[in-house]
This record gives sequence, structure tokens and C-alpha cells, in this order.
Amino acid sequence: MVIDGFSYAAVAAGIRKPDRLDLGLIFCDSPATAAGIFTTNRVQAAPVLLDMARIRFSGKARAILINSGIANACTGEPGMVAALACGRLAAEALAIDEELVQVASTGVIGEQLDVSRFAQAMPGLCGGLAADGYDRVARAMMTTDTVPKTASQQVAVAGHDVKIFGMAKGAGMIMPNMATMLCFVVTDAVIAADVLQDMLRRGVDQSFNRITVDGDTSTNDTVLLLASGRAGNPAITAADSPEGRAFSTALDALLRDLARQIVKDGEGATKLVTIRVSGAADEAAAEQAARTIANSALVKTAFFGEDANWGRIIAALGRAGIEFDPNRVDIAFDDVLMVRDGLGQGKAAEAMATAVLKKKEFAVHVELKAGSAGCEVLTCDFSVDYVKINADYRS
Amino acid sequence: MVIDGFSYAAVAAGIRKPDRLDLGLIFCDSPATAAGIFTTNRVQAAPVLLDMARIRFSGKARAILINSGIANACTGEPGMVAALACGRLAAEALAIDEELVQVASTGVIGEQLDVSRFAQAMPGLCGGLAADGYDRVARAMMTTDTVPKTASQQVAVAGHDVKIFGMAKGAGMIMPNMATMLCFVVTDAVIAADVLQDMLRRGVDQSFNRITVDGDTSTNDTVLLLASGRAGNPAITAADSPEGRAFSTALDALLRDLARQIVKDGEGATKLVTIRVSGAADEAAAEQAARTIANSALVKTAFFGEDANWGRIIAALGRAGIEFDPNRVDIAFDDVLMVRDGLGQGKAAEAMATAVLKKKEFAVHVELKAGSAGCEVLTCDFSVDYVKINADYRS
Repeated sequence: MVIDGFSYAAVAAGIRKPDRLDLGLIFCDSPATAAGIFTTNRVQAAPVLLDMARIRFSGKARAILINSGIANACTGEPGMVAALACGRLAAEALAIDEELVQVASTGVIGEQLDVSRFAQAMPGLCGGLAADGYDRVARAMMTTDTVPKTASQQVAVAGHDVKIFGMAKGAGMIMPNMATMLCFVVTDAVIAADVLQDMLRRGVDQSFNRITVDGDTSTNDTVLLLASGRAGNPAITAADSPEGRAFSTALDALLRDLARQIVKDGEGATKLVTIRVSGAADEAAAEQAARTIANSALVKTAFFGEDANWGRIIAALGRAGIEFDPNRVDIAFDDVLMVRDGLGQGKAAEAMATAVLKKKEFAVHVELKAGSAGCEVLTCDFSVDYVKINADYRS
Repeated sequence: MVIDGFSYAAVAAGIRKPDRLDLGLIFCDSPATAAGIFTTNRVQAAPVLLDMARIRFSGKARAILINSGIANACTGEPGMVAALACGRLAAEALAIDEELVQVASTGVIGEQLDVSRFAQAMPGLCGGLAADGYDRVARAMMTTDTVPKTASQQVAVAGHDVKIFGMAKGAGMIMPNMATMLCFVVTDAVIAADVLQDMLRRGVDQSFNRITVDGDTSTNDTVLLLASGRAGNPAITAADSPEGRAFSTALDALLRDLARQIVKDGEGATKLVTIRVSGAADEAAAEQAARTIANSALVKTAFFGEDANWGRIIAALGRAGIEFDPNRVDIAFDDVLMVRDGLGQGKAAEAMATAVLKKKEFAVHVELKAGSAGCEVLTCDFSVDYVKINADYRS
């Protein structure tokens, strides 16, 4: 979706391997209001550290320079020097303030970026900017992703048509603890920076922070949201105003859409599974239960084997560190009740549940009967291909 | 190793599949002093609940009846009735008090035991008891294990020769949070019950509680230790006496030996890897760091791929929730220093590290330089076969 004020370009810069799109640029023709959410991994890549500092300082951005191939993580002082240099190259080519450039990297950890490749590619990159060039950027940031991931929303804000467009990449090291590897969202909304940041935080908590592929949190997780203000709507200055609610509802839907696409394209994934826990004593217990099930290697391999092995689900629940009575737990696969009050419901229920597991998407619903809190986490199965992809990733 | 006072037998009882050893018995010809450690999974199998109650009540046991095939977990009231009935069958056949029978089950969760199969098998089982029958029992409790696991120790206690013999089974749902699936140890030592329990607790903490195959904690984890008292040593009445130290040193070595065998035979495992964390701020941080690395799917698949991908190790460290400075971390594979102060040491170091990873056993040493605490956790790699085994387990 074309968003007024933004243009995009991507090229093959030879960052780590030749002849693949690996360098992308998102550009706003005026300083955009900017919000960002970053990984909470204690180890944060150079671009993450740089972006956090810049976005907190100004709340503004005009460009996002994104490379795949090398994550520029665990690269120390030389890595930060490289991140600064790459941003400066973009700023000079675009004739903008370098403080308004955000940089993002994804790929192998521990290798240094070759800045000369960025310098060589920059004229072609900036010369290729186009309002409909977003799909190429979504492709340029792919690593083990098999498909690019984009989403769009349109919403009326006080009678003005506001558009939001986003792109994201997965596909491994996915248990975002605030964001996924990389996600960039642009909008033409007129909106205050602090409101934008609040909305992004809350939206990410209910989308990217509710998915897992492999339980590993990346060093490079970054979500950036830039608003050009071209929609001409009266400025959104509060999240709980009618305008704020309209915008954040659309934003939330877009973020959940992208999060879902990431899990669906999780490394080696053949199944998209919603783990829905209800009846927990409190929100924290519900989330802990859902996450423990969603990350269990035994549960995930059973999904791959299309085996309605509820024993592994209840065993995972039992090690989740939450209070519940195993003799009251119900477990359903979609609408097939497989376990009632802790007991299996027999061969007929198992046969129906096995049919559910043969589908590409299904839900596991765990009712704890210990309270009224709930949580949903999206996960995928753990396949032979997951192991193959990750045994071979760097070669 | 023959231990005075104990005899063993195993038969094919058809518990879940025909014609495989699936029922074992360990018998002591007089009431043995008994200690037990059980799973902390919130979901505990019927035999675990029964054994805990009995062992805490009397501190004595004369028999352990073990079946594979069905775990008798998540089986509710009928499961407890079955566990009691099986124990009673053994007590009657052996003409002993049923309170002195411990029962243990391993296998599929959620299916009920057929007590009639135990009844049919009991005469043959009890009739086959022999002092050297331990290897058959070690085989009878195997599920996805590929080899039986036994270990023995001999130690002088105040001039008396004391023997310890143990057997264990893995091979999946292994991140014991106090014990592994099943482990049975017998000794002829004369020792007080409370001292035996203390020693077992401490020994298990440093052995079975320091291993992981897949991060999943079983519902049936059980370690039992029976002492016949036939060695004739002066009774061990304190752990910190010379006799206590001699015995517990031998016991610890035996438990670590079995724990190591379990990881080595972890489902699909091709590598046995020691994760050694040092320089942590405190013990809890050291353990948390070691466990997070040892359970990371990305780290474990890299081991399978023989890829010295230290970026995944440092990323796992970063999400472990501990305090450390990423710019001070050192990482070595055996004695090859691959990362110093957070930075990779180049292609030559990487080539040497790759050679280390081609070995069947190696250590990863992570130095945090944040304090003086350390921890070791044993893990294995995550292979294509792990997924295949667990996608097909119940079929």
C-alpha cells in the first residue's frame, strides 16, 4: 500500500553473499514522528543501540537503512563505528541529518560489516526510491524467511482516511521479548510522538510478544513506526480519544497480522498453532502456561507428527511453575474436547483430535479452572527441516 | 555388580506392546533403609504420589516394581487404584507388607494400566529373582533409550567394603527438576535413613539436576536408593563424618556417571556437551546461564551441524535474565578460545573450534568475568532424529 510521504528501494549489495537483495531503504520526504521498540536481550546489536539512542533523543526519523546477511551483533566498537558509517553514507546520499537515519541489521552474529559495500551500493539504492517499492524492501530483509511479510490497514480518523503499512521478517531466533527480528511500519497519520510510542508498545505486547518459533530471543529485534502526517487528520494527542482508539485498533490488527505471518513462516514450520490458556489465576500465570506449552520441544514435535499427545501438554503445564489442579484441567484441540478434569476422553475423542492436527492451522485450548485470566500465544511445529535449516545456517 | 541382600527379575508382560521386557522387580530380602527424590512437576503420576507417601512414612522399602510402556500419569483415581493394585500383587507374591513396595512407571502419559497383565506376569517375575538379574531390569525400563544404563562403585567405610550399584533410564522429557525419569540405586551400606535422604538429595542436585536433553520435565521422575545394611560397616549416622564423606563421594560419582549416560543416550543425540559457566555473580546466575545455553534449540542444532556458532551462545546468554557485560565475555570450545571480551577471534580460531565440534564429546566454557560462581550442565545436540523420534513416539 502506498503511504503518502514514503518511498522505498532495495539492491543487491553483496553484504555476505553475491546476487541477492540484501540492502533496503525506507525514506520519508519530511521528518516523520517515530516510535521504536527494541530487544530486551542483554546482548544488543550495534544498530539497536544506535537506533534506541537516536529515537529517544528526537522522536523523529526520515530514513531506515536495513541490511540482511550480517546482524552486526557482538561486534564491539568496530561494529558501532560501522553502523554509524553506514547511516552517515545514507544521510549524505539523501542530504538529510544523520541523526534522522535509523539502521537495522539481521543475519549472522559476530561478523563485521564491510562498509565499502554500503558505499558502493548507496547511489543505486537512493536513485531507486519509489513510492511502490516496499515489496523489494520486504524481500531484502529476508534471511531464512521463505516469503516476504507485509500488511496494511486503512481507518477513518475524524473523517480523514488514514493508512498504515508494515513489513516484517522472521524466521528463527523468534521469541521476541518486545519485538521480532525486524518490523517497519509507516503511516500517514498525524499523531503525537509519545502517543505513537505508547500505542506501539501496547500493540507489540499483544502481537510480537505473543509468538514463538524456537524460544530464542534475538539480539537485533527492532520494531520501528514512522508517521508522515500527510493524512491531514486532526492530530491524535491521546490514546484514549475516539481518534486514538480508531488508529490503535487498526495498528494492533496490522501488528497481529505480521506476527502471525512470522510464525506461519517459522523455520521449517508446517503448522500454525494457537495456544489459548484460560481460567488461570492471573495474567502472569496464563502467559507462563501458554509460553511453556508453546516452547516445549516435545509438544512441538508432536504437532509435527500430527499426534494429539495431550500428555506432553499437561506435562509442560506441570513444569510451568504456576498453581493449578491437574485434576481439573480441560484440553481441547479446536472444538474437540480431549481431556476433561485431567482425564483423557478416549479413543473416539483422540481420533477426532488427530483429524484436527492434520490441518495446517488449529488451536489448543487449555482451561485451568483456577481463575479468570487468559492468554494466547502463537507457535508452530518443530520439524525435521527446522533442525536441517539450523544445522546448516552459516554454511 | 552383585549387592548383598538384593535380587532382580524382569519379564515381558505385554504392558503396551507384546514381546518386549517391560516389567522389572528389585527385591531386598529384608526391609532396606530407603530414600527417594521425585519430580517437582506439578503434575505427578500415580506411582510418584504413592511412593512419596510410603517412603516418607516409613523410610523403608523391600521391593521396587517397575513397568515401561505406560507412565500411569494423568490417569486420575483409576490410575491410583491401579498403582495400589499392582503393588499389592507384588506384596502378595513376595509375602511382604504392601507398604514396603515402591512402584514406578514410565512410558505414554494418559493411558490406564491393565492390572490383569501384572497379575498374569507376577508368578514368573517373582520366580525369576536372581542376585545377578540387574541388567534385565535395566533393559525392562527402557523406552526410547538405545542402551541400558548401569553404574557401580566400591568404597571402604571404616575398613568395611561397601558397594553401590545403580541403574537409570532416559531418554526424552529430560530436564529433571530433581531426578530423571527413573533411577534405582542399591547398596549394602549400613546407614541412617535421614542421612541417606540428605546424601541422595545433594547427589541428585549435582547430577540429574544438571542435565538436559530437551528442557521438558517428566511427570514420573523418580530416584530411589535402598540400603540393605549387609556390608557390616559401623552405621553411617552423619553426612560429615569420615564414613559419611567416603560413602557420599562414591554415591555422587555413581549418580553423575548415570546422569552422563542419560544425556549421551538422549533422544537422537550425536554429541555430549558440557556447558561450563564461570565468573558469574552468584550460583543462581551461573546455573541460569548454563541452563539457558544448554536448552537453546538454536545452540543445540548448531552442535548437530558441527558449527561453532558462538553468536547463538551469546544470544542465549543475553536472554537468560542475568547481569553481565557482553563486552567482557570469553567463550572457548574445549581449549580453543573463540571469543575474547565479546569479540570473535577470527577465522583461524573458528577453524580450530570447528575441529573440536566434530568430536563426540566436548565442552563449551563461558567466562562472564562478573564474579566467582560457576555451574556445569550436561546437554546433547538437537538432531533430525530427535524430531523423528518424537513425531512418531506413540505410533
